[in-house]
Amino acid sequence: MPDLQPNTHTLMLPAINFCNQCGERVEQKIPQGETLYRAVCPACQTIHYQNPKVVAGCIPEWEDKILLCRRAIEPRLGFWTFPAGFMELGESTEEAAVRETLEEAKARVSIQTLYALFSLPHVSQVYVVYRALLQDQDYGPGEESLEVELMPIEAIPWDQLAFPVIKETLQRYAEDRSRTEFQTHFGAIPRQPHPSPTNTHL
Amino acid sequence: MPDLQPNTHTLMLPAINFCNQCGERVEQKIPQGETLYRAVCPACQTIHYQNPKVVAGCIPEWEDKILLCRRAIEPRLGFWTFPAGFMELGESTEEAAVRETLEEAKARVSIQTLYALFSLPHVSQVYVVYRALLQDQDYGPGEESLEVELMPIEAIPWDQLAFPVIKETLQRYAEDRSRTEFQTHFGAIPRQPHPSPTNTHL
Repeated sequence: MPDLQPNTHTLMLPAINFCNQCGERVEQKIPQGETLYRAVCPACQTIHYQNPKVVAGCIPEWEDKILLCRRAIEPRLGFWTFPAGFMELGESTEEAAVRETLEEAKARVSIQTLYALFSLPHVSQVYVVYRALLQDQDYGPGEESLEVELMPIEAIPWDQLAFPVIKETLQRYAEDRSRTEFQTHFGAIPRQPHPSPTNTHL
Repeated sequence: MPDLQPNTHTLMLPAINFCNQCGERVEQKIPQGETLYRAVCPACQTIHYQNPKVVAGCIPEWEDKILLCRRAIEPRLGFWTFPAGFMELGESTEEAAVRETLEEAKARVSIQTLYALFSLPHVSQVYVVYRALLQDQDYGPGEESLEVELMPIEAIPWDQLAFPVIKETLQRYAEDRSRTEFQTHFGAIPRQPHPSPTNTHL
């Protein structure tokens, strides 16, 4: 089992102490037929799996510009990102990306293509990023954003981006755009040195 | 909040009754600053989020053949699939696909390209499927498989595939292969009529 200790400064999952079905204290054991330790309830036998979370987002495009948001919440308050957030039960990754864009940038987009799938194993997250078309120029900061700006690629604040996965995605986007040839990117992005004291996320 | 009732016949998540941190009975409420009902602990204030799960897999290729597995476990015992399974904490989607292929088909693969990203909103799953190269012809059924077979596209048992997402992926793969032009596919696959009485999964 990966050595994942609870850490409130990251988005890793805390250890499970009690069964969420019957309230009994759980045991850590390897269930029959499995190879990893799980939290197992000795009373109702429920096995409590913990799994990575999907973050869905998009790069909203308007002519030669893209829409970025400056975060109003921790982690990385004050830093820039494209609209993205945790996927909810019962929705598709496309629906999650559209919803997050509406919530964070009050903007309506239509999803065009899958642009990137990046895993962040050290925080057990999977980023799914689409290219999307902004439907109109009616946008503005939602509750989780300080400001929202439609900016040309040349204006991307490279040293003020929220997370390494955001920088990696936008760097590839800028390169693809300069060649006018877009690919779908994928891979894993490892933990990186903290670029600033406020980066407690990655 | 999506209307997701507990259903042991699907892989949807059961409702949360107790706090897994302190064991207290939870309340269903909309936390401040959010828009959806969550299970919230009145004692320790933990908000219990439930999120979709990632299923990672691959289509292992060997010359003009691909490797498929016949399931030894429910749901859809006896039906065919490419190797795929739930992603674990601390791994990338690529690592999960490689691990599942080793577990289910006792086969070693190297990941080549991202082939498909399909959401299954009705069961809160996201399938991530790669094209992969089989490293050698040493393979065989793992504990979760009845048999493993390296077969040409013409031999795919279309009416014996485990789930609609498996059929959709392999249909696109067969089409791409006939044109010798592979794309990365994405989209949502809705709930479909049960093709047989044993299909309790989708």
